[in-house]
Amino acid sequence: MKKRIAVFGASGTVGSAVVTALKCDNDIIPVGRSTSGVRADVTDETSIRSAFQAIGTVDAIISTVGQLHFGPLTKMTSEQFLIGLKNKLLGQVTIALIGQHFLAKGGSITLTSGIVAESPIRYGSNATAVNAAIEGFVRAAACELDQQQRINAVSPTMLTESLEVFGSYFPGFEPASGARVAQAYVRSVLGVQTGQVFNVW
Amino acid sequence: MKKRIAVFGASGTVGSAVVTALKCDNDIIPVGRSTSGVRADVTDETSIRSAFQAIGTVDAIISTVGQLHFGPLTKMTSEQFLIGLKNKLLGQVTIALIGQHFLAKGGSITLTSGIVAESPIRYGSNATAVNAAIEGFVRAAACELDQQQRINAVSPTMLTESLEVFGSYFPGFEPASGARVAQAYVRSVLGVQTGQVFNVW
Repeated sequence: MKKRIAVFGASGTVGSAVVTALKCDNDIIPVGRSTSGVRADVTDETSIRSAFQAIGTVDAIISTVGQLHFGPLTKMTSEQFLIGLKNKLLGQVTIALIGQHFLAKGGSITLTSGIVAESPIRYGSNATAVNAAIEGFVRAAACELDQQQRINAVSPTMLTESLEVFGSYFPGFEPASGARVAQAYVRSVLGVQTGQVFNVW
Repeated sequence: MKKRIAVFGASGTVGSAVVTALKCDNDIIPVGRSTSGVRADVTDETSIRSAFQAIGTVDAIISTVGQLHFGPLTKMTSEQFLIGLKNKLLGQVTIALIGQHFLAKGGSITLTSGIVAESPIRYGSNATAVNAAIEGFVRAAACELDQQQRINAVSPTMLTESLEVFGSYFPGFEPASGARVAQAYVRSVLGVQTGQVFNVW
């Protein structure tokens, strides 16, 4: 049966691979800052709420969004660290907190962390903290969600599609194709597990 | 050799146990919102910086501070979730970011996470996310600190001293005495490891 799936960050590298994997058998509602679908700024709670009100009830919510700060720890400021907290962390948590009220019974929420949660990279202390927090949130939220709703995270390694831009930050990390990463989102949406982190690495 | 140790949150349940364990052999500088030592509000970067300027160079920095939000996920707002991000997470990260510049060569930073990082409790999704983020930050920051500086986290279970107040939130969790928890901080300060989480549970 076709599912209505809201995808936050649908035009990004991960997001577009996820849309490709799911669009044949489901109704995808792309959501983003400058997307052709529904508009939302994930740093703004009101904007996320308006997006969900425009979308209505969905069977699944996927988020692949969120900015992080990358820079040397020895020069990092509190304000720079807050970038990842307000964007990738609080942005995705807010999508989940508001989204649960627009999610059908048995629906699922899938957030995005990343390999850096477990394997630090140079300049990546904000990313490790934020990604670990997202995995923690999912672990705890799964215990409290109502109406048989589920929540998981996907933790991708660097995408093959991003190798040219980000490759030098991930020395020796084996990349994964967007198509392969997207399958973890499919597994989260169509599977039965909750409170899981699906590592693609 | 005596170490100069700044303890943020020295008057709290964990903090006072840590001070007791370390005070005989070291010079303790208590730091807190309403402490008799140096004053600092951990939600205010300027206040943390002023505290370190008043303290000067130290051999170790310990933080046991930080507020969290506890409440049902199904009613949680983005603003409530931000409480833990700005207090326990960004507060402790800011102590580390500023503190590294006031830390002697070979000095250590010890932050505090908690058992809820791995074992969720009811109403604890903010706590799990924040504690997991602190552990992530420590894991990554240890790879970048300069001058042989070290950074670790201590993850205590519920303290025996807090059993009466918090016991009902931790059904079946075995408590640990403040004195036992304090030894993990001693191990972090006087040991050689870095990037570790010392679980006391």
